[in-house]
Amino acid sequence: MKKIFLIGMGPGLPEFLTVQAIETLKRIHVFFMLEKEGRGKEELLRMRRDILDLHLGKDAYRLVVAQSPSRRMASSDYNEGVKVWHDEKHALFQRLIDEELEEGQNGALLLWGDPAIYDQTVSLVSDLASRSEGRLDFEIVPGITSVQMLAARHRIPLNRVGESITITTGRHAENCDPATIDNAVVMLDYNASFQRFRDQDMDLYWGGYLGCEDEILVSGPVDEITDDLLRIKSEVREKKGWLMDIYLLRRRKDER
Amino acid sequence: MKKIFLIGMGPGLPEFLTVQAIETLKRIHVFFMLEKEGRGKEELLRMRRDILDLHLGKDAYRLVVAQSPSRRMASSDYNEGVKVWHDEKHALFQRLIDEELEEGQNGALLLWGDPAIYDQTVSLVSDLASRSEGRLDFEIVPGITSVQMLAARHRIPLNRVGESITITTGRHAENCDPATIDNAVVMLDYNASFQRFRDQDMDLYWGGYLGCEDEILVSGPVDEITDDLLRIKSEVREKKGWLMDIYLLRRRKDER
Repeated sequence: MKKIFLIGMGPGLPEFLTVQAIETLKRIHVFFMLEKEGRGKEELLRMRRDILDLHLGKDAYRLVVAQSPSRRMASSDYNEGVKVWHDEKHALFQRLIDEELEEGQNGALLLWGDPAIYDQTVSLVSDLASRSEGRLDFEIVPGITSVQMLAARHRIPLNRVGESITITTGRHAENCDPATIDNAVVMLDYNASFQRFRDQDMDLYWGGYLGCEDEILVSGPVDEITDDLLRIKSEVREKKGWLMDIYLLRRRKDER
Repeated sequence: MKKIFLIGMGPGLPEFLTVQAIETLKRIHVFFMLEKEGRGKEELLRMRRDILDLHLGKDAYRLVVAQSPSRRMASSDYNEGVKVWHDEKHALFQRLIDEELEEGQNGALLLWGDPAIYDQTVSLVSDLASRSEGRLDFEIVPGITSVQMLAARHRIPLNRVGESITITTGRHAENCDPATIDNAVVMLDYNASFQRFRDQDMDLYWGGYLGCEDEILVSGPVDEITDDLLRIKSEVREKKGWLMDIYLLRRRKDER
């Protein structure tokens, strides 16, 4: 039996790991890291290594770095593009487990935020495990998400009394009816879709690099801050070469 | 200046605290705990004290326990009932900060899960701080939520590719159009509203006492497990005197 632990590492800095995550690190024989293309890759890899160095001792662990398949952003069929990408990842994971993990060993992936939210690694490893005829097991260790960091840093609740919260993607924010949104946390927004929500009496709470050293916060009425935010996003992306951001769109209500 | 830290303690057991939360505990002069009525109150208080005993030393901290105002569940006007309850809580917090916390000291509340989700303490303390003319500050420390524990324990992602996630209440689940739900995490469901979702091709992933010692998991098609789940809920509530539960309703899709 081999076992894979999917460990939520939180938003970046080592202080956001839970005790459970730290205890789990100590039981791992091989850490797998998938390197993505792009200018931020050294920094993203570095943050993971900092966590391992801190808790296990500098370089005192076995690390296997593999090149992550790239997603075809330009694919005409969104779902088809995602499927090809998943199949390639699937094959990569199978190879890593077959070749780099020995019988009886524990492997792990340190996943940004929480493994259950907008990360398809759970489905992928679950699928490998279910096809393994009992030779592969897996376990999930939850981590603090950027959704939670966003609320904590802006010092706001995610929802007001009795309201629901929707966690969604930029792609959905770009296409949905603005009237359907009360509290929407938008992740993976590559096209600054918040611009669509002008003239809707909505407030925006935005965070970039949340839980990292370069954290930036911007908030205010969508109508007033959109232009500034577009400029800030463009500047920081230019400077660092990558941007991880997230925001909450909230419909303004009359105070009771 | 006085400062209040709202610390997410995660779902119960001490292993779910983050390093940031543990470091914050060490800076606190006074811990406030609000005791709720009901048979589970000793156990809920005990779990908080276990966390403090473990990280600060047995009884090596100042603790102020106050009786939390009860919510009028029977109120004819839901929002009005909530407002009265908030006003009473508001007055209680103001008194605790005035009388139990000295100038320059840090106070804290250990909040179940994450302070930003379905806990109105953030709004309340934010309001007190904004009226304090700079004499009261506050900070939020995120914690692992039962939403995340639910996904981790069932070893499922909260959303499938491209889908949104809605986090909502039993009250909403009781009244919404079932057709609007794809992935809904339902909290605070006092009326087992999942019963409404029979004959809808939906799966249910349920967890009781998640992240605690008595954790229970149940999952399967709503049509098949509803009766069993109603029986289980009734049995454990009878046995322990209280039940904290949460579930994910997910519309079944054809596999691609």
